[in-house]
Amino acid sequence: MRFTLETSCDGVREQFFVLGEIPGVLWTPQGSAGTRPMVMMGHGGGQHKKAPDILSRARRFVAECGFAVVAVDVPAHGDRPKVEEYDRLAAENQARVEAGEELAPLIADFQALVARQTVPEWRAVLDAVQQLEHVGAGPVGYWGVSLGCGLGVPFVAAEPRVRAAVLGLGGALASAEVAGQITVPVEFLVQWDDERVPRAQSLALFEALASAEKTLHANPGKHGEVPAFEVDSTLRFFARHLG
Amino acid sequence: MRFTLETSCDGVREQFFVLGEIPGVLWTPQGSAGTRPMVMMGHGGGQHKKAPDILSRARRFVAECGFAVVAVDVPAHGDRPKVEEYDRLAAENQARVEAGEELAPLIADFQALVARQTVPEWRAVLDAVQQLEHVGAGPVGYWGVSLGCGLGVPFVAAEPRVRAAVLGLGGALASAEVAGQITVPVEFLVQWDDERVPRAQSLALFEALASAEKTLHANPGKHGEVPAFEVDSTLRFFARHLG
Repeated sequence: MRFTLETSCDGVREQFFVLGEIPGVLWTPQGSAGTRPMVMMGHGGGQHKKAPDILSRARRFVAECGFAVVAVDVPAHGDRPKVEEYDRLAAENQARVEAGEELAPLIADFQALVARQTVPEWRAVLDAVQQLEHVGAGPVGYWGVSLGCGLGVPFVAAEPRVRAAVLGLGGALASAEVAGQITVPVEFLVQWDDERVPRAQSLALFEALASAEKTLHANPGKHGEVPAFEVDSTLRFFARHLG
Repeated sequence: MRFTLETSCDGVREQFFVLGEIPGVLWTPQGSAGTRPMVMMGHGGGQHKKAPDILSRARRFVAECGFAVVAVDVPAHGDRPKVEEYDRLAAENQARVEAGEELAPLIADFQALVARQTVPEWRAVLDAVQQLEHVGAGPVGYWGVSLGCGLGVPFVAAEPRVRAAVLGLGGALASAEVAGQITVPVEFLVQWDDERVPRAQSLALFEALASAEKTLHANPGKHGEVPAFEVDSTLRFFARHLG
């Protein structure tokens, strides 16, 4: 793990790093030392580790809860090189949708493919970050919606260090079987008028989670229109389960 | 409006009253004066104005938000006399369920009947309580689930003073058309394994609300098993919209 750049702003320390081929960012309270809860955040499709919704949530988790937050670029996103196989699949899927195929199953297959790479990558990032003196091996949470849900479900299922997760804006096709292996508390976001994920599939993925405590929050609006008050709810959810 | 009994405990003043034939309770912060937000609470079937879930929520709304809270007995509940017509209908419905009819439509019809009496009663209670110096004509919220939702939907639709409502554990059959007249923010509770309200009907009632801001919270468990953390969420919802 190699740190490349560091800044601080409004009490939040931001450290860019590279782990092998994985570029990432770690946010912690400025001047802090010792073990603390950590939230790993998975970004959406076409976005990256410092996308606005990642950054604004990360800053609040750090400033209001004293957590550490880490986010890395998914392969072929952010500072990472293109992946020829993904480009080819994306073009193929585009053509299939134009020819009348349903979008959701194609997204699901694609996310399952990417997850085979990201699950071991994210576990390695967790290993490395937990070695740091100002993070340590405290309770871990995961936050990810849309692509961050598609990749997050297999990650949360595979990683026993994750104690609570916020997921959503994702459907059941890729993830239902794996979701049945998740038993930690989950807050699950649904956009009632999601143009990318059919409502029935969202509800089916929530249904598939084996968690004794799981709570579904549905709001009107499209895929990208999660209301601001859900960030407050997310914050309290993690504070309750990791704090 | 005639006050009959008054107590105070842990900073919460509790005043019993009778308005015409309607027995009620008003909770306010002890020693308070002046206008404040008020939440009207509708109790569940077979319960009453001081049922444990009403009382515990009311005390928190008062102690943590400084609100006034009012609850009254629904006809044939609590301190009110039996209503022969309701008894007859309940017995008829019981027989029809035993003969194989679906429960939900029978409940819906019954609640619609009771609402024709409770909507004007509750509006009169609101008029009277808002005359009191320590309550005043501040913003009004409504909280009611189960029977409190069945009666609450027509009340919230009819009463322009209500600015935000927590509803739920109720289905669409009785209320869908009336729900389409509700435009204020709503937090809507669904129990995922509700044995009394079919899930599809709960979702349909949420769908029917015309509110631009509405948020559905679904949790695993049966009709009576709403998790404790939803009370915190309710509190913040009212604080956001009435505070």
